[in-house]
Amino acid sequence: MNRIHDELKKLATYSSTKVPAITRVLYTDKDLEARDYFIALCEEINLKVTIDAIGNIFSRWEGSDSTLPAVATGSHIDAIPLSGMYDGTVGVFGGLAAIRTLKNEGYKPTRSIELILFTSEEPTRFKIGCLGSRMLGGQLKVADVLKLTDDAGESFDEVRKKAGYTSNLSEVLLSKNHYKAFVELHIEQGPILENEDLDIGIVTKIAAPSSLKITLTGEGGHAGAVLMENRKDAGVAGAEVMIAVEKVAKESESKDTVATVGIFDIKPRAVNSIPKEVYMEVDLRGTNVTARDFALNKLKEDVKTICEKRHILYDIKMVNCDSPAICDSDLVNVVESVTKNLGYKSKRMVSRAYHDTLFMALIAPTTMIFIPCRGGVSHRPDEYSSPAQIEKGVETLKNTLKILTES
Amino acid sequence: MNRIHDELKKLATYSSTKVPAITRVLYTDKDLEARDYFIALCEEINLKVTIDAIGNIFSRWEGSDSTLPAVATGSHIDAIPLSGMYDGTVGVFGGLAAIRTLKNEGYKPTRSIELILFTSEEPTRFKIGCLGSRMLGGQLKVADVLKLTDDAGESFDEVRKKAGYTSNLSEVLLSKNHYKAFVELHIEQGPILENEDLDIGIVTKIAAPSSLKITLTGEGGHAGAVLMENRKDAGVAGAEVMIAVEKVAKESESKDTVATVGIFDIKPRAVNSIPKEVYMEVDLRGTNVTARDFALNKLKEDVKTICEKRHILYDIKMVNCDSPAICDSDLVNVVESVTKNLGYKSKRMVSRAYHDTLFMALIAPTTMIFIPCRGGVSHRPDEYSSPAQIEKGVETLKNTLKILTES
Repeated sequence: MNRIHDELKKLATYSSTKVPAITRVLYTDKDLEARDYFIALCEEINLKVTIDAIGNIFSRWEGSDSTLPAVATGSHIDAIPLSGMYDGTVGVFGGLAAIRTLKNEGYKPTRSIELILFTSEEPTRFKIGCLGSRMLGGQLKVADVLKLTDDAGESFDEVRKKAGYTSNLSEVLLSKNHYKAFVELHIEQGPILENEDLDIGIVTKIAAPSSLKITLTGEGGHAGAVLMENRKDAGVAGAEVMIAVEKVAKESESKDTVATVGIFDIKPRAVNSIPKEVYMEVDLRGTNVTARDFALNKLKEDVKTICEKRHILYDIKMVNCDSPAICDSDLVNVVESVTKNLGYKSKRMVSRAYHDTLFMALIAPTTMIFIPCRGGVSHRPDEYSSPAQIEKGVETLKNTLKILTES
Repeated sequence: MNRIHDELKKLATYSSTKVPAITRVLYTDKDLEARDYFIALCEEINLKVTIDAIGNIFSRWEGSDSTLPAVATGSHIDAIPLSGMYDGTVGVFGGLAAIRTLKNEGYKPTRSIELILFTSEEPTRFKIGCLGSRMLGGQLKVADVLKLTDDAGESFDEVRKKAGYTSNLSEVLLSKNHYKAFVELHIEQGPILENEDLDIGIVTKIAAPSSLKITLTGEGGHAGAVLMENRKDAGVAGAEVMIAVEKVAKESESKDTVATVGIFDIKPRAVNSIPKEVYMEVDLRGTNVTARDFALNKLKEDVKTICEKRHILYDIKMVNCDSPAICDSDLVNVVESVTKNLGYKSKRMVSRAYHDTLFMALIAPTTMIFIPCRGGVSHRPDEYSSPAQIEKGVETLKNTLKILTES
């Protein structure tokens, strides 16, 4: 079991920032090198690797009855700027460890097992999360993916081809019954398991995420020469919007509605120039769709009020406004019985973070296996799960895969 | 007089953004090419060009008595990102036009005339305004200039040497009586001259500028997984500080105290990550030092209050907190009589924008000649002064230089 820890440490070195700060952005050299590393490990244990037109990687262990729908597991290895080494990666390399152990134990599955490395779970480059699974699940159409461009103005289609993924985009979509089940292993990214001293969380529902792009346009000018009363400062308007984002989440009727302004860019960005434009990205989600949508609508009203008062033009684009995923109760029961048999302390829980599972739920019965992470910390360099915690997650996944592929 | 307009248009092409949006950052290729263009024009009319260790350029027309202190004029050609083509440049190419005309008219000065192109009036690259004149005037010591680094981590000393300015930094400082007088021609960057239908503003005082760097440090984390009540979001704290910056300026006792947050950077800057850090730069200035300092102190208190409430660490660095410049009353009288003789409508006024004159005032009697600019707009692509307005500014400067160098 030390092996997966060594592999995660090795994987962490494929980063454009210095370890422990991990930055692995879609289709950059570091991302492609990390993918090669993963593929080599899959091939070492004779998994058959196929890659689709956007770089979703499927590593297959053929079962004795290859006509049956396979059971799938997996996660992602892309990492937002300056984040940690466990988010996503534990599900990919944990899946690999589970398969490797099953093979070493001489297990012969009836159904095939597929380990999936999803392309771009993080929205860093193209501003849309779960890009790979979203396309697999049919929630991102070819026509829409062709419209995506990154901050440098490069289109998704150009960069995926540069990365070597050149086949037809229409082939990415999977059919509704392609898999018998999909189970994702992941760190919790919250403090509940640690606080309650539990080994495993079994996910019954995934929160409904939404994201917005807001552009505010005022008037620039010399910071010394334009009197305060004559200003149309987009920066200060943006600051008021940022405070409104926090407020609508706090005042929604669900305690776990959360909202964040993670991107806030000023133009022209000079100390002695009044901000003419602000571009911001807002993440707003919750397990209660009604509360989430209430907050969304209140925010839109607030932006209007703030901008009208300050004579600022505004543009709001809804990037995504997804439904929550309800996990499969039979699968949840299977995982729960596995943890009991292993003697692990587990509980059923809701995921308030976004996961590829959200979209895999559109084409297969799903659940997720959560393991604790220190302090509930994620998307930071100090993100951490211990080797022992990871081992329990892998054991749970391994035994779940075994049960699901026996027949 | 069309020639200066053609020269300004040509100069505008030396920009790293597309005309009419001008971006000309210190020591970039475009800045160096623009300098070469200026030097070639100076040499064409036999001015003797010397350049100091930081790239301040002095183009000298030797007078008949070269032992007398010279009279100087000039301004800057660096331009903040996405700004216009008149700020600074009118004073440099207007000075050249005035000298060229005096030469063509057969004038023979007794005192020498020096046309100065100041290095980095804009704080874009090294976060400090009037870098060149600040060193000439002794307000920026060699030890402090050696500490300056840009966003890319390059030191000022490295980049000035790369730009070809390699001589000893200690040679930049000028003595107190180096010039008999310094007169800068500049666009107003405010709407007063246009609103009152005037040709020329004669500056009697320059507002006292200050600037601050503020860094706020909270806690990052996953935007979906950390509940609102558990957050230490540096972004929202920064938004409150931005609003406080506006408020302290509006509530200061002087109507023309102005404050601006022109730079506001979030880390890690990802839509699904809670901002861990905010870095902002604040510009705060006014003609009334007491009101300006009152606003500065109130802002520092506000930052403390906001950050304590939100459990955010903060660091405030004062980049500069300068005194206002009082212009020389004899010089002001000379310029005023020149405008009267030319039949121009002029008025005495205060400059609320920063200028190299602020620091030249430490080593010479100074004043400034302002010309109107459309709508008071500056630091924007639509910044504009008409050829006729520029011509009146150049005529005023020309006749002033003539009077000042006759004996």
